[in-house]
Amino acid sequence: MAATTPSLLVVSAHAGDFVWRAGGAIAAAALRGERATVVCLSYGERGESASQWLAGKSLADIKEIRRAEAEAAAAALGADIEFLDLGDYPLLESPEAVARLVDVYRRVQPTVVLTHPLADPYNGDHPAAARMALQARVLAQAIGVANSDGSFPSREEIIGAPPVFFFEPHQPEQCDFKPNVLLDITEAFARKRAAMECLPAQKHMWEYYTQLAIRRGVQVKRNAGPNLGLPHDTMGEAYMRYFPQVTGELA
Amino acid sequence: MAATTPSLLVVSAHAGDFVWRAGGAIAAAALRGERATVVCLSYGERGESASQWLAGKSLADIKEIRRAEAEAAAAALGADIEFLDLGDYPLLESPEAVARLVDVYRRVQPTVVLTHPLADPYNGDHPAAARMALQARVLAQAIGVANSDGSFPSREEIIGAPPVFFFEPHQPEQCDFKPNVLLDITEAFARKRAAMECLPAQKHMWEYYTQLAIRRGVQVKRNAGPNLGLPHDTMGEAYMRYFPQVTGELA
Amino acid sequence: MAATTPSLLVVSAHAGDFVWRAGGAIAAAALRGERATVVCLSYGERGESASQWLAGKSLADIKEIRRAEAEAAAAALGADIEFLDLGDYPLLESPEAVARLVDVYRRVQPTVVLTHPLADPYNGDHPAAARMALQARVLAQAIGVANSDGSFPSREEIIGAPPVFFFEPHQPEQCDFKPNVLLDITEAFARKRAAMECLPAQKHMWEYYTQLAIRRGVQVKRNAGPNLGLPHDTMGEAYMRYFPQVTGELA
Amino acid sequence: MAATTPSLLVVSAHAGDFVWRAGGAIAAAALRGERATVVCLSYGERGESASQWLAGKSLADIKEIRRAEAEAAAAALGADIEFLDLGDYPLLESPEAVARLVDVYRRVQPTVVLTHPLADPYNGDHPAAARMALQARVLAQAIGVANSDGSFPSREEIIGAPPVFFFEPHQPEQCDFKPNVLLDITEAFARKRAAMECLPAQKHMWEYYTQLAIRRGVQVKRNAGPNLGLPHDTMGEAYMRYFPQVTGELA
Amino acid sequence: MAATTPSLLVVSAHAGDFVWRAGGAIAAAALRGERATVVCLSYGERGESASQWLAGKSLADIKEIRRAEAEAAAAALGADIEFLDLGDYPLLESPEAVARLVDVYRRVQPTVVLTHPLADPYNGDHPAAARMALQARVLAQAIGVANSDGSFPSREEIIGAPPVFFFEPHQPEQCDFKPNVLLDITEAFARKRAAMECLPAQKHMWEYYTQLAIRRGVQVKRNAGPNLGLPHDTMGEAYMRYFPQVTGELA
Amino acid sequence: MAATTPSLLVVSAHAGDFVWRAGGAIAAAALRGERATVVCLSYGERGESASQWLAGKSLADIKEIRRAEAEAAAAALGADIEFLDLGDYPLLESPEAVARLVDVYRRVQPTVVLTHPLADPYNGDHPAAARMALQARVLAQAIGVANSDGSFPSREEIIGAPPVFFFEPHQPEQCDFKPNVLLDITEAFARKRAAMECLPAQKHMWEYYTQLAIRRGVQVKRNAGPNLGLPHDTMGEAYMRYFPQVTGELA
Repeated sequence: MAATTPSLLVVSAHAGDFVWRAGGAIAAAALRGERATVVCLSYGERGESASQWLAGKSLADIKEIRRAEAEAAAAALGADIEFLDLGDYPLLESPEAVARLVDVYRRVQPTVVLTHPLADPYNGDHPAAARMALQARVLAQAIGVANSDGSFPSREEIIGAPPVFFFEPHQPEQCDFKPNVLLDITEAFARKRAAMECLPAQKHMWEYYTQLAIRRGVQVKRNAGPNLGLPHDTMGEAYMRYFPQVTGELA
Repeated sequence: MAATTPSLLVVSAHAGDFVWRAGGAIAAAALRGERATVVCLSYGERGESASQWLAGKSLADIKEIRRAEAEAAAAALGADIEFLDLGDYPLLESPEAVARLVDVYRRVQPTVVLTHPLADPYNGDHPAAARMALQARVLAQAIGVANSDGSFPSREEIIGAPPVFFFEPHQPEQCDFKPNVLLDITEAFARKRAAMECLPAQKHMWEYYTQLAIRRGVQVKRNAGPNLGLPHDTMGEAYMRYFPQVTGELA
Repeated sequence: MAATTPSLLVVSAHAGDFVWRAGGAIAAAALRGERATVVCLSYGERGESASQWLAGKSLADIKEIRRAEAEAAAAALGADIEFLDLGDYPLLESPEAVARLVDVYRRVQPTVVLTHPLADPYNGDHPAAARMALQARVLAQAIGVANSDGSFPSREEIIGAPPVFFFEPHQPEQCDFKPNVLLDITEAFARKRAAMECLPAQKHMWEYYTQLAIRRGVQVKRNAGPNLGLPHDTMGEAYMRYFPQVTGELA
Repeated sequence: MAATTPSLLVVSAHAGDFVWRAGGAIAAAALRGERATVVCLSYGERGESASQWLAGKSLADIKEIRRAEAEAAAAALGADIEFLDLGDYPLLESPEAVARLVDVYRRVQPTVVLTHPLADPYNGDHPAAARMALQARVLAQAIGVANSDGSFPSREEIIGAPPVFFFEPHQPEQCDFKPNVLLDITEAFARKRAAMECLPAQKHMWEYYTQLAIRRGVQVKRNAGPNLGLPHDTMGEAYMRYFPQVTGELA
Repeated sequence: MAATTPSLLVVSAHAGDFVWRAGGAIAAAALRGERATVVCLSYGERGESASQWLAGKSLADIKEIRRAEAEAAAAALGADIEFLDLGDYPLLESPEAVARLVDVYRRVQPTVVLTHPLADPYNGDHPAAARMALQARVLAQAIGVANSDGSFPSREEIIGAPPVFFFEPHQPEQCDFKPNVLLDITEAFARKRAAMECLPAQKHMWEYYTQLAIRRGVQVKRNAGPNLGLPHDTMGEAYMRYFPQVTGELA
Repeated sequence: MAATTPSLLVVSAHAGDFVWRAGGAIAAAALRGERATVVCLSYGERGESASQWLAGKSLADIKEIRRAEAEAAAAALGADIEFLDLGDYPLLESPEAVARLVDVYRRVQPTVVLTHPLADPYNGDHPAAARMALQARVLAQAIGVANSDGSFPSREEIIGAPPVFFFEPHQPEQCDFKPNVLLDITEAFARKRAAMECLPAQKHMWEYYTQLAIRRGVQVKRNAGPNLGLPHDTMGEAYMRYFPQVTGELA
């Protein structure tokens, strides 16, 4: 409706999550020339780095390795990336952490937000990240909520109400994840694959998430209908809106 | 994605439902120059014509009155209209009725379908209409399912997989209606109001549905965010997708 | 609010259901001097009479036995009873059966309706009875819906919108039965017990449903709070409203 | 059942919430001569005072303005009011805050409690208020839980188990708000309107909530049935019970 | 608990469904030396045979082709197969069809039943098959329900209460399919693959369902825990219980 | 699948919960010669010891009494027991408390975990216990998460992914408790009864939970089917799985 500069914000609990789960959407935005920003709340240094712990790496080393990998992946996707280093397993929620996220929202001025869904029996850090992402989004809208340095935002600094999309968890049905948006990432997939290959420790996931993209691509075609002539190799990602879609046209 | 001619199909249990619940979407489509077709499964002659029964009208008279009103309302919206005259209270489901709807789908080639939600404790005809609309949509896709005259469809006659949107019932929370699409009908509202005024027996509803449009308009603005500069008098209608949205861009 | 003569209508799939599940509510109404009417859609002659089939009784005999037992139980509760003899296992839904129920509603003019919940994985007759009870309730409200003899109802014959309460199924959690009304049946329990004892073939159920009444009675007390001084032997029945409660006072 | 003095307790996240959402229930209680107490956990000074921040008011000024308005509104409704000043945006949950609420429960001895529903994607303070209100209600029942001054409650000071009703959020369907109680506030509405007019900064809400009362009033009538002769201008408020209703009579 | 001869009954809407969705469970049963019986309610001749219609085959030819393919697939799995030829698109529910299924239940005496889940927005035949399978299972338990030839069952002919498992639909999240059983089909997978290859018209599905088995195999491992030493190539199928599991040991 | 030594871990909010709700499962494990360990997060000293507070006991005395009773009950069941003494009403969640539970998991190496369900409107300590039990289970799996003494776990010390079963709350329907496992505790019931009798302050619960075991036993039989020849006095406990069952055979 009103003109706003597209800006995608991705809030990721750990350093790798955004690649597997939202890499297609991020790359597609970048390919359209839009700004994409990834915020990693932690490096996933404790919960998702088993092979490095087994190899005897130190905590500082592991963080550094994962940071470098995530930076490379973000670059492959065409996104900016930053790290809040809040710690993982558990990722603790706090007013201070939320305040830092409020700053990010006001700086990035997102028009679209991606994050984890609110339920995940396998990993409590994912819902914790989502709760903080959602709370910060609301606080960043309020002119009476100060920035983390104590200053008050100007009228331009507060944000609007960007739509929030939850990206796909590892075991969707167990996370009450019922996709209501299927994203065609056919064009963007090569970049997503390149980003996945920046994460060598999880090499077995490359094929896993390629297959998932094929499967979601089949659903893109099936839900779009045979008339639309989508190519046989349509690739997809699944999302779940948290807020109702606002539109001027049903389609 | 692929080019298709926009075509809106609205499946309405009774002769007036499409006006109150989907008049904005219909008028908006017409204003964009698109084709809109309303199919009324019944006239609502038994369940929604109390004042006419009390006035001693005959069944035939009541049907005629309601048909004329619905035709006038459709014209005001800019839509074609047809009537299957299946009877109401109850609207009975049957293979024959579904077959007639299959014909409609193949003739209209809808790119978007609107109908009632699947639950309504206050009126069993509404879910019955929805079930038939959904079943016919699937059958119309199959080249092995004959038309109601026994002929088989050609490859061009079968339909794709148009998205289905449920329109808002009278008591949404009791009907498990959780809107996930808010439609901006500001431009189209004048036509919707004109169409409502074609239904003089329910004059008290004119204001009721105008107020509802204002309320849904507030939600359009609230969900779109303060930045978007929507006008103060934004009018809205609420919808619920039945299938996931297929899109090339998250927004 | 407005004055209406209390009249309780209970729609029961089989001849015994109303005793076990709603006997307390029926007896309580009768004790208050109100009219209570039970309609048994079938005798439960096929699905709930295993011992009689094993004893070699004929279908006619079994129906007669169950009818007599149900009449005795209704008398013990203080209720009128009638039988539609629609057959069980399966209880088939049909427009004709619904039309007969419409007649019952218009004759009985219920101010409260009790029936089975809408889900029961163990017995499909129960949801079928509920669907017909709910459909007939809506049809009976419409002045344009004829009686089953073809005559049209007068303004006094159509009914209002009586609240509907689902009574407790045998395995509540499996039937999505979440009680939102706990009824104190302490006074009425002796009558319920007497009615249960009219059903000698299910003697093992007497104690079972007595224990259930004690358990629901504990919940009556627990939800009412320690201050209320309810007696130690409070007996209860659980119900689930289908429509919102209408009240002039929150309590 | 047992005699208790009616006492209504309303737990409101911000200073204005109780007016828009529960003003009818509060005024109705006061009109019946019952005690009504409102506890505002915060003034809504950050999240709901945008116009005052834009006008350059200080935090202290804004709190004072909102306190005065809320006091005027409570007086118009006929209720007592107190403020815990816990801060908003975010309203932080803490054992200390809950302990202060426990004191309130024991002092007020509520027979009915009103608060926000447990989900609200648009405002995290509302569910936070509800969680604290519910937790404090349970703690206040326990004789082993000390008052906030360290003293232990007497047998008379602990509370019973008052029913809890959630009042209507701004976007009910998005908050999983399915009303199961519709309250007739026709008599009380004039007071509610007067209380709304004590909040001049939200003048556009006066009409909005008047229209909502009309709409809920239509549902009061529709669910109560045509026989009951409710006046055309019935006004309503919607509520959702958290615990099952305990009753001696189904109605 | 008590000794019963294992007997697996699979109720499949169309001729191919059982292969893709439950082939692993069927083959595993056969490999354990147990009896497995597949009942196809229709051949899927209209809704799932598009390529054959496009090739100009007659209805009779298509049925014959699909029957032969299904027989070959059942043989590859090690199962018996029979066909009720009830027609598809739509698969119509009727008392007669259910009565034929009751006969099957009494003849097969299943100890485990597999069928479609109860919701599928993409294909109404699947829920229709499930509803009939579930209804027939209940009727087959009742000694008072006659066989379809009018004779009454003996005490040995009526069945027990075999557990029912829903197999995985094509778009699980859209069908409210939340697996609560993950079946290890590693041993049986070669047979499942062989059975899939009996269906040459859907060659693109061979790889699709192989990938799904890998993905569900990953979940088998993830839910079983790293300690269990499952092989890297664990293959799985997902199921959803309809009734609670009965067990003598939690595990 | 792979061989592991059976080890049952029960996480109980208060000192008595494990007896009433899971005593049968614990005793059954012990009767099979398996290890069972109960961890009580608090003694229930404030919220569940009203009679002792009324008798003027001190906090220390009450804790001691409840500890002794719980030890006796655990002994009667055949289980080890330990106490974290975290305090109740409210049971506060903290990283420290979770870290202590992580230690327990790594020491006990559970193959099965039992705890409270995640919702309970009547007692917030129960969901708090469940949340901590679930979080600790995930953290204990990660080799990068230190023990509470700062040391890192060895490869043998981290745990697998044991299934979690929620045991039955006092008002199951209000806690969204839908059992999907019914456990036959007939053999173990005598021990459960003996354990209950170790809790003299809640003597009225002995019979209550005996009746519940009978009722759940009826459901064991009803869901297992008449063919299985279960004894008339089958006793049961109800459970709800949190994760999907992993199995090599559907049954």
